[in-house]
Amino acid sequence: MRGVLRQAGLLCLCLLAIAALLAAWLYFGLDADMRGLEPSTFRNSQKDAAPVSRFISVIDEAAPRPNIVLILADDLGYGDLGVQGSLAIDTPHIDRIASQGVRLTDFYAAASTCSPSRAGLLTGRYPARSGIGTPLQAIGDTFARKLTHRAAIIMAKLGVVDMIGGENLVQGLPTAEITLPEALKLAGYRTAAFGKWHLGDFTELPEYHPFQHGFDHFVGFNMSNDDFPVAFWRGGEEIVEDIGAEQSHYTRLFTEEAIRFIEEAKEGPFFVYMSHKDPHLPFFPSERFAGQSDGGPYGDAVEEFDWSTGEIVAALERLGLGEQTLVIVTSDNGPWFEGSAGELRGRKGQSFDGGFRVPLVARWPNRIPAGTVVEAPAMGIDLFPTLLRLAGVGLPSDRVIDGSDIWPLLSGDTDGLPERPLYLFHEFDVEGVRVGDWKYLRDISHWTWPLPLDKRDNFAGRIAGARDYTPPGTEIRIPTLGTWPRLFQVRRDQGESYDVVKKYPDKAEEMGALLEAWTREFYENPRGWK
Amino acid sequence: MRGVLRQAGLLCLCLLAIAALLAAWLYFGLDADMRGLEPSTFRNSQKDAAPVSRFISVIDEAAPRPNIVLILADDLGYGDLGVQGSLAIDTPHIDRIASQGVRLTDFYAAASTCSPSRAGLLTGRYPARSGIGTPLQAIGDTFARKLTHRAAIIMAKLGVVDMIGGENLVQGLPTAEITLPEALKLAGYRTAAFGKWHLGDFTELPEYHPFQHGFDHFVGFNMSNDDFPVAFWRGGEEIVEDIGAEQSHYTRLFTEEAIRFIEEAKEGPFFVYMSHKDPHLPFFPSERFAGQSDGGPYGDAVEEFDWSTGEIVAALERLGLGEQTLVIVTSDNGPWFEGSAGELRGRKGQSFDGGFRVPLVARWPNRIPAGTVVEAPAMGIDLFPTLLRLAGVGLPSDRVIDGSDIWPLLSGDTDGLPERPLYLFHEFDVEGVRVGDWKYLRDISHWTWPLPLDKRDNFAGRIAGARDYTPPGTEIRIPTLGTWPRLFQVRRDQGESYDVVKKYPDKAEEMGALLEAWTREFYENPRGWK
Repeated sequence: MRGVLRQAGLLCLCLLAIAALLAAWLYFGLDADMRGLEPSTFRNSQKDAAPVSRFISVIDEAAPRPNIVLILADDLGYGDLGVQGSLAIDTPHIDRIASQGVRLTDFYAAASTCSPSRAGLLTGRYPARSGIGTPLQAIGDTFARKLTHRAAIIMAKLGVVDMIGGENLVQGLPTAEITLPEALKLAGYRTAAFGKWHLGDFTELPEYHPFQHGFDHFVGFNMSNDDFPVAFWRGGEEIVEDIGAEQSHYTRLFTEEAIRFIEEAKEGPFFVYMSHKDPHLPFFPSERFAGQSDGGPYGDAVEEFDWSTGEIVAALERLGLGEQTLVIVTSDNGPWFEGSAGELRGRKGQSFDGGFRVPLVARWPNRIPAGTVVEAPAMGIDLFPTLLRLAGVGLPSDRVIDGSDIWPLLSGDTDGLPERPLYLFHEFDVEGVRVGDWKYLRDISHWTWPLPLDKRDNFAGRIAGARDYTPPGTEIRIPTLGTWPRLFQVRRDQGESYDVVKKYPDKAEEMGALLEAWTREFYENPRGWK
Repeated sequence: MRGVLRQAGLLCLCLLAIAALLAAWLYFGLDADMRGLEPSTFRNSQKDAAPVSRFISVIDEAAPRPNIVLILADDLGYGDLGVQGSLAIDTPHIDRIASQGVRLTDFYAAASTCSPSRAGLLTGRYPARSGIGTPLQAIGDTFARKLTHRAAIIMAKLGVVDMIGGENLVQGLPTAEITLPEALKLAGYRTAAFGKWHLGDFTELPEYHPFQHGFDHFVGFNMSNDDFPVAFWRGGEEIVEDIGAEQSHYTRLFTEEAIRFIEEAKEGPFFVYMSHKDPHLPFFPSERFAGQSDGGPYGDAVEEFDWSTGEIVAALERLGLGEQTLVIVTSDNGPWFEGSAGELRGRKGQSFDGGFRVPLVARWPNRIPAGTVVEAPAMGIDLFPTLLRLAGVGLPSDRVIDGSDIWPLLSGDTDGLPERPLYLFHEFDVEGVRVGDWKYLRDISHWTWPLPLDKRDNFAGRIAGARDYTPPGTEIRIPTLGTWPRLFQVRRDQGESYDVVKKYPDKAEEMGALLEAWTREFYENPRGWK
């Protein structure tokens, strides 16, 4: 009885604490770290009033213009494929792509969470330029939707669950952005997207429909498959208002739709953006795959994703398009609750490599040498300039493109790209930078409380660092809120286990200065207009 | 200005929340999950009033009685040795022990934190039997000590730092326990401990001095090297009241002291318990090692630990004791902030294998076949019965010994030990069980709020599991506090990335039932008196 009273009393006090935090959140909002940016920054560009061709143009009529099939997994971790070392999940089709083509060992998603990563992939720019820092949420006007959204954010902010819940500056990818399909269309590409969109809830706000972003064809969901209610759309028409748990047939459906599109568009060139729901939770593998893998429902979803990839490659071969088609398979970020980041540290939402580094394999017979393995770092934002180059399309004239053309890497010329920094954003903060073998995570002492859970590991580590750095002779050391930057040598320390700031202070200072200078420059013109 | 006010207001409300939580903690205490055990349970056994020989006796005068050197690292991770795959840290001496002898790939510490792990190692019993659930804290009467202790616990309970801060039921290893050196002495062993004790702050409470626990000789610290003020003792005398940051010479000192003891005791048999401060933070490698490794100050500390091990083996060889000495090297738990758990999930304090699984290598020329690799699971509690068997000493008659004699495994007879469950305690909760290839983590829904940070990853994962298990047709899914057990196939899923409860429901049920039945039985007689 006394125990029950204690528990009840503890619960009451905890509720009081939660109420206070909630009040703080509701009252003060959470935009303090958005560096003064306002939503209005992301509207009314010149592009909204002019055709894409005013800012971007075909520069090489002799370009190879391959068909492009860009296959994106959702929350697939670095270690979840056979070719990446998984012993629990069989992915023969994706493994075969790697052996027929190229595999990048150090490929970073544009962000460590879904929507920002997709924004970076489709624009070639760091997603903060689009105002997208965290996964976009459904914004419908039903009470249930709001409640889901609010509950998830509150729990994340309280640190109860490891979810990402910051606010964004936009409700979807701004139409002012120039996307990959918009640019490719100038070179005659037919464009299609299948699967999860997650760049704006177009069920409520039509301006974020894929049709407004350069896709001729679309079959898929408005949001992530766990952002209930999730709508299924075919083109401009909502077919199912809420798919609920009836999800197990969609991977097959999207695959068949993609193959049908490829058959229709086989004269080429075409661009297929195959944006899977798999293996994002909840896991709903189809009956054929359920229980088949040794990776649980997650692994089943990965194996179905692999099957889908194999079907698409088989269709390309059947249609005689193999040698005219570049197939790229990658993921949007590291694994969330289930899934393996291999030997990398951290998971989805973190700036450790486990959050950012994802598999990337690609094939284009006779263009990409079979069995190529590339260790040079690259990032999701690089695909935009790379694919535009292959299509003979120039870069936009009116804006910064952050990515680089990595065709030299993909085609096996591993010396073909000068070393350059890749920046790791956490929401709207530039939290790290990778250059060559080095990775630097910066001092994070500006963070506001409560800390998101995904920053805690960094944070706690900094405390360890700070203690280590306390001048000798100090007798009592209480962990403080002071933090410290960290430097890692990634190639020999894939797990980011060993801070080497002390051993290489000059390198740490150099990378810190690089990061700070670039961040300052970035936020002088976050939209990157020229 | 407005921004500053917002920040200030947020801070005020956060402080209010912290105050409420603090009040709850101070008022209600945190003993709710200690299963009704009282500190008095751990005192006044029969043994306190009788010699050890009343409960334990020599049973085999023909036993080999090797010298035993048990070398224990502090917070050394599964991936931090060359032989365990490290590319950043060189450990040639320990690697050589593995190649000359045996390496256990699936060796579990007795607990995932320091003091409980040591209690299990020295008693052969799960540390909860000794009333030790978490790292023991200095208990001095200075305000500063109390403040350090309280601050650490509060921060851990608030989830601000990933520290372990639960309460224990005792202030040190109860003298009612029978330790490894106490038992070995019956067979004529001379016994010595060097380095960190951390089984009771004997500076304040003399009953916890190593002399009270079977050691003839002791040179070392009362507490962990970060539990300031840390005292340095030589035998029964306090030499330095607070070593502070003057730590860099101690690894050499302990090594030299151990070698001197070995020289003196060379007629044998002897037992050396070499309990390093390295690589626990703060890192104070000596000048010779500082900056030498590619693993930062942490790696330097590991390399000094390796050097020390090499010195001891060299001394044994020099004295012609190589073939009469069993040398064992292992760690007390997984890595904390720095350090690598290899491809394992989790770190110190967690029930994922990254918290529990540690390297173990051992050599005993002509007795342990060179280059043996053992994959059968074993645990720190197994060393007590194993070493007693080698000494020809029987097990205590009055109490349960949880460990098993693993000499068959160490000597290369990999079929020599029947499959048996190893239980993973988190503080006083039995949180998981490993049997053969299977590992099961149980439903954790009984946990009280606030959750320790180290349980969050489990917890969040369970939410994912729960969502996955929500019956189809449910339209709105809000993450709930409901949790779920998880089952892993460790050999093909070292990272515990894939819950396979759905694929193997019978196995999950079997292991869940095993765990629950054993837990019930355990807490009917937690002290394990016969």
